[in-house]
Amino acid sequence: MDSVSSYIESNRDQFAADLAELLRIPSISAQAEKNAETRRAGEWVASQFKNMGLKPEVIPTKGHPLVYAETPAVPSKPVVLCYGHYDVQPPEPLDEWISPPFEPTVRDGNIFARGATDDKGQMLTHVKGVEAWIKSVGKLPIQVKFLIEGEEEVGSQNLEPYVGQNREKLACNAVVISDCSQFAPGIPAITYGLRGIAYYELKLRGPKQDLHSGTFGGAITNPANALTTLLAALRDKDGRVQVPGFYDEVVPLTDREREEYRKLPGTEAEFMQSVGVTGMFGEAGYSAIERRWARPTFDINGLTSGYQGEGAKTVLPAKASAKFSFRLVPNQDPTKITNGLRKFLEERLPPGIQMELVDHHGAPGVMVALESPYMAAAAAAIESAFGRAPVMIREGGSIPIVNTFADELGADVLLLGWGQNDDNTHSPNEKFSLDDYHRGTLASAALWEQIAKLSPTEKSKKK
Amino acid sequence: MDSVSSYIESNRDQFAADLAELLRIPSISAQAEKNAETRRAGEWVASQFKNMGLKPEVIPTKGHPLVYAETPAVPSKPVVLCYGHYDVQPPEPLDEWISPPFEPTVRDGNIFARGATDDKGQMLTHVKGVEAWIKSVGKLPIQVKFLIEGEEEVGSQNLEPYVGQNREKLACNAVVISDCSQFAPGIPAITYGLRGIAYYELKLRGPKQDLHSGTFGGAITNPANALTTLLAALRDKDGRVQVPGFYDEVVPLTDREREEYRKLPGTEAEFMQSVGVTGMFGEAGYSAIERRWARPTFDINGLTSGYQGEGAKTVLPAKASAKFSFRLVPNQDPTKITNGLRKFLEERLPPGIQMELVDHHGAPGVMVALESPYMAAAAAAIESAFGRAPVMIREGGSIPIVNTFADELGADVLLLGWGQNDDNTHSPNEKFSLDDYHRGTLASAALWEQIAKLSPTEKSKKK
Repeated sequence: MDSVSSYIESNRDQFAADLAELLRIPSISAQAEKNAETRRAGEWVASQFKNMGLKPEVIPTKGHPLVYAETPAVPSKPVVLCYGHYDVQPPEPLDEWISPPFEPTVRDGNIFARGATDDKGQMLTHVKGVEAWIKSVGKLPIQVKFLIEGEEEVGSQNLEPYVGQNREKLACNAVVISDCSQFAPGIPAITYGLRGIAYYELKLRGPKQDLHSGTFGGAITNPANALTTLLAALRDKDGRVQVPGFYDEVVPLTDREREEYRKLPGTEAEFMQSVGVTGMFGEAGYSAIERRWARPTFDINGLTSGYQGEGAKTVLPAKASAKFSFRLVPNQDPTKITNGLRKFLEERLPPGIQMELVDHHGAPGVMVALESPYMAAAAAAIESAFGRAPVMIREGGSIPIVNTFADELGADVLLLGWGQNDDNTHSPNEKFSLDDYHRGTLASAALWEQIAKLSPTEKSKKK
Repeated sequence: MDSVSSYIESNRDQFAADLAELLRIPSISAQAEKNAETRRAGEWVASQFKNMGLKPEVIPTKGHPLVYAETPAVPSKPVVLCYGHYDVQPPEPLDEWISPPFEPTVRDGNIFARGATDDKGQMLTHVKGVEAWIKSVGKLPIQVKFLIEGEEEVGSQNLEPYVGQNREKLACNAVVISDCSQFAPGIPAITYGLRGIAYYELKLRGPKQDLHSGTFGGAITNPANALTTLLAALRDKDGRVQVPGFYDEVVPLTDREREEYRKLPGTEAEFMQSVGVTGMFGEAGYSAIERRWARPTFDINGLTSGYQGEGAKTVLPAKASAKFSFRLVPNQDPTKITNGLRKFLEERLPPGIQMELVDHHGAPGVMVALESPYMAAAAAAIESAFGRAPVMIREGGSIPIVNTFADELGADVLLLGWGQNDDNTHSPNEKFSLDDYHRGTLASAALWEQIAKLSPTEKSKKK
């Protein structure tokens, strides 16, 4: 392991240059006009595997391709599947970026670019950890399989069936994913819970075209008015979602969890300052951490209607639309929630308005086994690289594919986040600390050694 | 008058070509980048007056210039001030125009372009009516003064003080304005009432920048959620505005008016078909015509927040904004309503949200004298040109400057609309019937003759 670490140390600059190269590719999976760029990012990842002597596959799907590679099998040792994604979120609003989103720029030890932390930088730590073993020792102490997709930011719709149809190829004892955050700078973490998501677009249509709000206003339903009324009705004044049955299956926080969360460092005042707000609001009866990690939400992600330019325009718009999402927690069922939502909206639809509800993607929340030998191995690897044992946290974001891996492959899932909460994921000025990139690579390389100490038949105690 | 009419008949094509020339100038007063074009439209109008031998002034203001011209004084005859505007609404959404908004195109006897009916075409009927008198008879039977502005679509903020400061120059017995519609094709109208307006932009700001809705959602107020909640609260389920005192000063419809409106042709089914809706909604207890002409409204004119592109983006937006307006009726006071609105919103502002309420422009509603000799003169002129006596109607739109003219100049106001309700004012595919353009020009020329029969000392009975 010493020679592996030395290789990582001496290639620190090269690894950063490789990350910058990948970050220059605008692989925005949601935008069809960027399809060629998105594919190019996948091919770039495949070329990394080829350069270390593996035989990668670029697997076509109905959407963006999957990239698969594996190191040689190691008899009597566990097998790990390492998952990540090469696609990124759209970079808008562009005018808020200090440096352009696809021109990676280093400031104060951080590399700024769309995808820096989510997930190109974090994903590459595992690629580079394997490269380090191959280039220094010549082989790995366990078999590592890589499955890197290009559709995580649009719902992983083609990865999901692929996993179900390739259980033997992907067979493993543990799945390793780095697509989340440490608890705070200097406090590494292992994530044992994720929220799910149900994302929609509600499109309302009123008159056949935009009308003069003076000549026609008052006599017909304005789709923008209808939209605000429908969306406002989805929440009560205590922040509770009003779709019938929404909370029925919610797994409540345990007393133990609430106690552990209270012990974590940081105050609400610090949190408010970090995001730049002067007040907090959320579901009554819960702390900010509980609301972010373990309670479902309703957030509007986009609103569009009528005139959005400079000055005033007295238009009664023909249409209005909103993108919005619920964050879900175990055991809420996205399908049941979609059905309840559709009924809720249809029942309240005012006269003269046509509605279309687009179901963009859904994924249930996740809780992984805390008492697993793989969890202990990960904790040891992280402690060796970061100099401190990780805390056990949940995360408010979603990695829709995690449930699929757990269910289809019967594997433990290790959510090892190297990012920081202020990395501006999905926001302008996304960044990733180059120190965290380096420590994550060291931790990844150490993890293969830790897991090599386990027996592949050793099973986790599923919670 | 025969030679005047002959001139108008024989110059029908030239007048249409002149209108097309003006329509080609994108004089969008709301957009600063179009300032030079807006000015060019004003200069084009001035050149029309110059070509007929008048001495126009292009009067600078803090915004877009005013154009003034007058025909020679005629002793012992009334004086008319003719008001119109050369600026236009923004043309968005551009992709819904069949032909480009600033490339005037004739289809089925209509000329399609932004500003065709509002107000370039209607305003030009009076310019051309005067040209016809000068070019055929050599002079007019009364003095006509023109005041054409370039800021009607942004609130006439510079015209208003100009009128107050130039009462002598603008002194007149009647003000003629053609910036509204006939009742229906073949049914000309005189408009005796207009709604006022109070137009706002509400800007909400939450976190210092866009955040990941998974990592942060639930713990802070989402500005887009706050916006929909605030806007929805402005109306109850019966369509009544909830700002305290909003209805206090509303002048109720008289029994006579309601009776007259019931007699007008047209059904609600026809109205629904004309705007393309399958159901109607408005303030409880009123017909569609009453709701459009004589009851106040709340309409959202634009919504903007978060991600509006293709696909899904899980963003918690830093800001959200809405443009919205109340249509007012006599005697609601825009200033009082702004104060009530601000208080209403501030009281409901959720924690962690900063609000800015921009007051774009306001104008009270208008009722003009029905029993005026000028009204009778206008009815006679319209009947001679359109072949049918006009009906007396109100109009839901606003012409903010009308009250200023009535108050500052003590003049009767004649609202003579040559447009049609389906002219797509403020909408894509705005149009103006070339037949109405021609008949409007004939009616305008006839009006100068009708008014010449009146004594300038004859006063209207103000209602």
